[in-house]
Formats: sequence, C-alpha cells, structure tokens
Amino acid sequence: MTAIAQQFLAPSNFILQDKDAGRRSFSDLGTKEEMKLKTTGLGEQIAAYQEILYAQHQHKLLVILQGMDTSGKDGTVKAVFGQLNPIGVRSISFKAPTTIELAHDFLWRIHQQVPATGEVVIFNRSHYEDVLITKVHAWIDDAECKRRYAHINAFERMLSETGTAILKFFLHISKDEQKLRLEERIADPNKHWKFDPQDLSERKFWAEYQDTYQEVIHATNTELAPWHIIPANSKTQRNFAIASIVTEKLARMDLAYPAENPALYKLKVE
Amino acid sequence: MTAIAQQFLAPSNFILQDKDAGRRSFSDLGTKEEMKLKTTGLGEQIAAYQEILYAQHQHKLLVILQGMDTSGKDGTVKAVFGQLNPIGVRSISFKAPTTIELAHDFLWRIHQQVPATGEVVIFNRSHYEDVLITKVHAWIDDAECKRRYAHINAFERMLSETGTAILKFFLHISKDEQKLRLEERIADPNKHWKFDPQDLSERKFWAEYQDTYQEVIHATNTELAPWHIIPANSKTQRNFAIASIVTEKLARMDLAYPAENPALYKLKVE
Repeated sequence: MTAIAQQFLAPSNFILQDKDAGRRSFSDLGTKEEMKLKTTGLGEQIAAYQEILYAQHQHKLLVILQGMDTSGKDGTVKAVFGQLNPIGVRSISFKAPTTIELAHDFLWRIHQQVPATGEVVIFNRSHYEDVLITKVHAWIDDAECKRRYAHINAFERMLSETGTAILKFFLHISKDEQKLRLEERIADPNKHWKFDPQDLSERKFWAEYQDTYQEVIHATNTELAPWHIIPANSKTQRNFAIASIVTEKLARMDLAYPAENPALYKLKVE
Repeated sequence: MTAIAQQFLAPSNFILQDKDAGRRSFSDLGTKEEMKLKTTGLGEQIAAYQEILYAQHQHKLLVILQGMDTSGKDGTVKAVFGQLNPIGVRSISFKAPTTIELAHDFLWRIHQQVPATGEVVIFNRSHYEDVLITKVHAWIDDAECKRRYAHINAFERMLSETGTAILKFFLHISKDEQKLRLEERIADPNKHWKFDPQDLSERKFWAEYQDTYQEVIHATNTELAPWHIIPANSKTQRNFAIASIVTEKLARMDLAYPAENPALYKLKVE
C-alpha cells in the first residue's frame, strides 16, 4: 500500500496556483458520513499510539499547522487530536508576539514550546508567521527573510537530530472558500468570537500570501521536516488526509511499551 | 592601539598544551594592587555602557564563561560584572540538567536564558558542557558530538544574526594551580560550600578534559562567536584581560541613548 503522506508531500518547485484546494483525494472512501467515521477511527488509533509514546518516554512529535485565516487549523486540532489524553498533548496557538517575545530572536518563544520526550505538540501557527505576515507587509527585507529561512532549517534540523519527528501541513483553501467561511462567521452570532475585522484587511493581500507561502514552502521543504500541502476546501477530506498522515508517521516510529521488569514480579505490596 | 582582545583570540589549530596558563600578559601595568584598581575602573566603564545599552533597548550581549573547576568563573562574574545594575544583567549558572531539561534537546534550557534587547547575560558554564563532560565520559559518541558542534554553531549564528553579541572565554588554569585551589577550599571552612567531592574525581580526567576543550574550541571557534583563551593562574591578570575585552566590545557596539524627543519639552506636568 502506498503511504498516503506521499500524495501530499510538496514536490520541489511546485506551483501553489496549480494545486487545487478543492481536490477530493479520497473519492472512493464512501459518503461524507462514512469518511467522518473513518477519521474518528484514525483519531482513536492516534490516541492509542500516543499512550504508548507517553509510556515509552523516548520519542517526540511536533505537528505544525499553517494556512490562511479560516483554513481550518482549529478544526483540524479538534478532529484529528481531539481524542488524545491531554496529559501527553499540548496545542499551542501562537498569536502576535508580546513585548518580551519581540525582545528576543523569533525562535525564542517557539523553542520553549517544543515537545519533551513522550509528548505530542501541535503548533497552531508557528515560526512560519515570522516569514509570512512579516514578508507580505515588508516588515523584513529579502536578506533578513533568507537569513530566517536558514535559521528555521537549522533549528528544525537540530530538533529532528535530537529526536523530534516533525510534520508540517499547509491547509490550502481557495479565495472563494475563504469568502464563504468569513460570511458564515459574520452571519452566525456563535461564530462572532472567531471573527477579527483584521481578517478582511489581510484578505486583500491574498495573492501576496499565496506567493509568499509558495516561496516559504520551497525554502523550508527539507528531508527531515517536509511540507504536506493539504487541499482544505473540504473539511472532511482535510481531516481524513491529516489524520492518515499522522497515523502513518506514528506507525513508523517504533513505538513500544518499555520492556517488562522481571524484578517487579517478586515485589510484595504490604 | 591594538585591541587587547586580539591577543587572546584562539588561533585556528592552536595547541592548548602550548598555551601557558601562567602567562602574565600585562607585566607592564604596575603592581597587583594597581592592576586591581584598573580592573575596578574597567568595571565602572562596563557599568556605564550597560546603562546606555539598557536605555537604548536595541543590543544584547552574551558572555560565556567556561573552564575547569576552580578556574575562576564565579570570581570573574564578581570582579568584572559586580558593578552592573542588576536590572539589566543576569548571571546564569547551568548545573546538571533536570529531568525536564533532559527531556528536551540540549539547547532548550540555554535558549530560554539568552539576553533580551537591553540585557547583558553571563553564562557560568553553558551548552558547552554538553560536548565536554559528556564527551570525556563517553556518554555521547563522536558522531553525536559532531552533530552537536553543528547545532551549537547554527544556534550561535542565529543569535548573532538576530542581534546578540557573543563573547566566549575559556579560563585556562594549570593542573598544579587547580591542586592549590582545591587544597585551599578543603582547608578553609568558609570555602567548604564551594567544594564538591566530585571535583576530585573529575580531576582524574584532567588530560581528557584538556584534549576535549581543545577540540571543542577548534570546532566552535567561529567568526561571529570566537573563543578567547585567558591565562587564568593569576586572578588579577585574568580579571583585567576579561574586563578589557568586554569594555572593548561594548565600546564598538554603537551604544547611545535614544535620540531626544523634542515633543517632550512642550509637555506640562500638572
């Protein structure tokens, strides 16, 4: 069986515009409801793996989610990782940096949150914002941007070589799909908390963001920490794809409960 | 005037054994008492620079002190940085890593402590312990050690390129000098708190530590973060050398109070 991850790995020199955000990669897997059930099944598998990962206390898994506003980063966390025991998983949402964070290098706040052995950590936005929004608005110049790519690649190499498995996902939606989702947020009072008027001003830079995402993914698409491009107009397709890739990764991580300790059997509990 | 730092920069391919720990680099600067006064004067200058560095809130200075037990790391902090306003300086002593620290990559606890803009931070021991004691006792193999050199160099490059000036000092004492200092600690009840019986067992690995220090300094002696080798059998000579190098560095950092704000003059305080 071909690994599902393979289909989604960003090829070198891909053109983001040619990637169809509406592509249905799993058309043969039944109805929407059936696919949701399958994703829930994968979520259970991920939770089972994570129990072993936690007990084994040896591996670390870092999942990085990036995408335009409304691309479904929060929804992915819920659908794919919602069944994990909170004791061994942390979801970190990186917002606009604080004064103290800005007084340090851009990787300072990121490094503090990387997984410890036995942990799964999800970055909901990440250090990639420091080469995205900053680039689009020309807060940094090209030379600084190139230096940051090198810093990111060195940082991820270090994490990887010290035992952290890294999965990077770009949730790819179309401009039309974002329109629908923003309108939905505006129309539904229960979704008003998710709406930020700034989303509308950032939407004006849609083309610039697409170009920048493409450049960033090209520049940081390394063997140790490759990018997956996930067509994300369909939430069902998106969740199934990511859940599958995470499951595959965990399946290959050589997870096992620590060996039995024969000495324990002789102990008397009084 | 030639910069004092130049004399102490580790040349590529130097042999540590050929470096005289007892060398008196400043024989023409008067008596011991006169030199101590000069060091105090430099300490005042450093304190004055630091006030500006703090107000300017733009530069960061990281000083890394490494050396064998008793080589004078604590003494250097006191003699060179003792006059700084604690508001803008932090001295961090890295001890044996905790369980939580060991569950992360070796740079995790280090990165958390790097200076923010406006700060001077002194590392009393550092990430270099992770290629020293670990190498001497073969807790890591050569391949892992080489990977760590690369991680350290990439990390220090990132810090440097994001605005942190880095000064690295190896306090070089002789084995005989260490003997005297350990005996002093044993003989003086007021110094017992500084004595750790483990110092005696580590002393047995003296030759291995010298070899490893030489290799480590060669491998991490970069243009952006060069090593200074400080003959440290004489505390007076050591302190004067380090105080001079720190002063020189600050003098070249383009420190200045932020520009006046003419609008302020029009303000009325009621």
